[in-house]
Amino acid sequence: MTEFIPAATKFVALSSPFAMKRGGALHGARMAYETWGTLNAARDNAVLILTGLSPNAHATSSEANPEPGWWQAMLGHSKPIDSDRWFVICVNSLGSCKGSTGPASIDPANGLAYRLDFPELSVEDGANAAFEVVRALGIDTLACVIGNSMGGMTALAYLLLHPGSARSHVNVSGSARALPFSIAIRSLQREAIRLDPSWNHGDYDEDHYPESGMRMARKLGVVTYRSAMEWDGRFGRVRLDSECREDDPFGLEFEVERYLEGHANRFVRKFDPNCYLYLSRSMDWFDLAEYASGNVSAALARIKLKKALAIGVHTDILFPLQQQEQIADGLRAGGAEAAFLPLPSPQGHDAFLVDIERFGPAIADFLAQL
Amino acid sequence: MTEFIPAATKFVALSSPFAMKRGGALHGARMAYETWGTLNAARDNAVLILTGLSPNAHATSSEANPEPGWWQAMLGHSKPIDSDRWFVICVNSLGSCKGSTGPASIDPANGLAYRLDFPELSVEDGANAAFEVVRALGIDTLACVIGNSMGGMTALAYLLLHPGSARSHVNVSGSARALPFSIAIRSLQREAIRLDPSWNHGDYDEDHYPESGMRMARKLGVVTYRSAMEWDGRFGRVRLDSECREDDPFGLEFEVERYLEGHANRFVRKFDPNCYLYLSRSMDWFDLAEYASGNVSAALARIKLKKALAIGVHTDILFPLQQQEQIADGLRAGGAEAAFLPLPSPQGHDAFLVDIERFGPAIADFLAQL
Repeated sequence: MTEFIPAATKFVALSSPFAMKRGGALHGARMAYETWGTLNAARDNAVLILTGLSPNAHATSSEANPEPGWWQAMLGHSKPIDSDRWFVICVNSLGSCKGSTGPASIDPANGLAYRLDFPELSVEDGANAAFEVVRALGIDTLACVIGNSMGGMTALAYLLLHPGSARSHVNVSGSARALPFSIAIRSLQREAIRLDPSWNHGDYDEDHYPESGMRMARKLGVVTYRSAMEWDGRFGRVRLDSECREDDPFGLEFEVERYLEGHANRFVRKFDPNCYLYLSRSMDWFDLAEYASGNVSAALARIKLKKALAIGVHTDILFPLQQQEQIADGLRAGGAEAAFLPLPSPQGHDAFLVDIERFGPAIADFLAQL
Repeated sequence: MTEFIPAATKFVALSSPFAMKRGGALHGARMAYETWGTLNAARDNAVLILTGLSPNAHATSSEANPEPGWWQAMLGHSKPIDSDRWFVICVNSLGSCKGSTGPASIDPANGLAYRLDFPELSVEDGANAAFEVVRALGIDTLACVIGNSMGGMTALAYLLLHPGSARSHVNVSGSARALPFSIAIRSLQREAIRLDPSWNHGDYDEDHYPESGMRMARKLGVVTYRSAMEWDGRFGRVRLDSECREDDPFGLEFEVERYLEGHANRFVRKFDPNCYLYLSRSMDWFDLAEYASGNVSAALARIKLKKALAIGVHTDILFPLQQQEQIADGLRAGGAEAAFLPLPSPQGHDAFLVDIERFGPAIADFLAQL
């Protein structure tokens, strides 16, 4: 039940009570965020970044925290999202364990961590909480909302629930609704955590932590975040050195297995399992079509923007390319000048984190035209 | 430690000792098989079917066992593999738990189940064991070897290790070597079983069975055996009736989750976990390139056939289409009249089991030209 808060993180107190979409409310909740650049006098150069499931608010290094951020190559001085021009805000998602209030946070009602007593979390709650951060910073209208993966869902909810809150939007490997393959994968990830006896219905601690469940969930995530094509070139059938192999007859043998182990090692005990369950489930529940009688295109067309861009990659099996095309088409039907940009990145869903060579110019070009 | 043997299964005793590729040998081992149709006087109308990981030898119904088989629509009187013309043999894989000797079988050395004392199993061992069945039936040269999925690997090993043993080959959603995405998926499936405390390093029984590990392995398999495209149309975001939902806050909610549950329920306790581990690992190890200094195409070209067909589907993420194309190209380089037939089935890797409308004519046409 630990939170993992980067240095120099700032906080905004949410309205109290903060009503949740599916019922219940948070009291005394907060949102963690960081900013880069300077808000201009007209207050019209603000860009909001909404993240995927696991990142914190530290998207890139700053004077206060020189550690590299999770989108270091994308954001900063003279970078594609140029902090010389833009006042950039990145929020940690509501329900996360990296500064914003979530299941690992203390419930002021009883002084104990919420755990499974945290109210049901939806993507829309995350959007509303991010909106409060932007308002608290004195910004009425964002120049752009950029949302990656889960953050692409959050961005669409943000824009639909808060008309006029932004002039433009970049949706990066996002979707307007969860589809069954992605639901199935996330369901298995959650099942792996829940099956771990140490999960104990959410009542674990550092000494009794559902490590094997979290490892399995993370590995399964990494398998679906990347692509077979990338791995064929990267790992092929390369085997581990004999000294790296496990004694276990079914232990690690191939480089690709060690790669998954490495990812799992960097994730477990650095992310709260209950927070993972809540955020993962919120994605399965997300369906923008709820706001237009079940018609996802009509719901997208209710969002009013000047310009929009939806980017994705052919090798993404979790948020497949047709979902970004659907977003661009829907926003265009709503009146936006909306472009769909499929990129040939081999890296799958995670390409936006690593293929800066392709994603960087795409986002820079879009922002340059604002 | 139960074996699951269909009625009317026949057996062939393997040579004893039966030497295993990676060391060790089996004593008193046997192979389970079934046949349909009649071997002609020239003994030249025999077709061998090599299966995927889990099927038994009961590919289709017979007088002795009228239960439908796993390829019921494909094989029999006037079916694509027509038992009026062909003498069809289907073997249960060596290492399985459905009649052929495997980790769940009794080790004659001590009267106990082998469990993890079973020697390391390779695809080549399965090929050599199948070859002994064919020889025991008095057949020198098969008219055709048909191999599906893992059986497609076994078939290539069979043909390469036993030159002149067949005139033709149909490779269905198979591959000449395991690639890292498939290795990663299978590695996670095995890890799920090994992590289940009830697996107990292979020492379980009916009362202490690694049910949750096997459920997870099977669900992960089903996710990769089918395709996102099929599921979008089939399940969409349909939710379970409220009375079907679990009380658990993270329990089943979507139809796609119930579908996975159903598959898991039909699999666990009907397949031996140790056998699963052995067969799964044998696929990771398989690399036909071992027989040609690391060059998979050159290894395929060492196989001498008159005719060959490699079939696959666009939506297969586990044995992707380019692997079947590689097989056809390699066999053609070896002198066969070899066709590559990509099919537009939406069902993914498992399409050959369900899309008989497409696979049936493809296989029937090939056999008709022999």
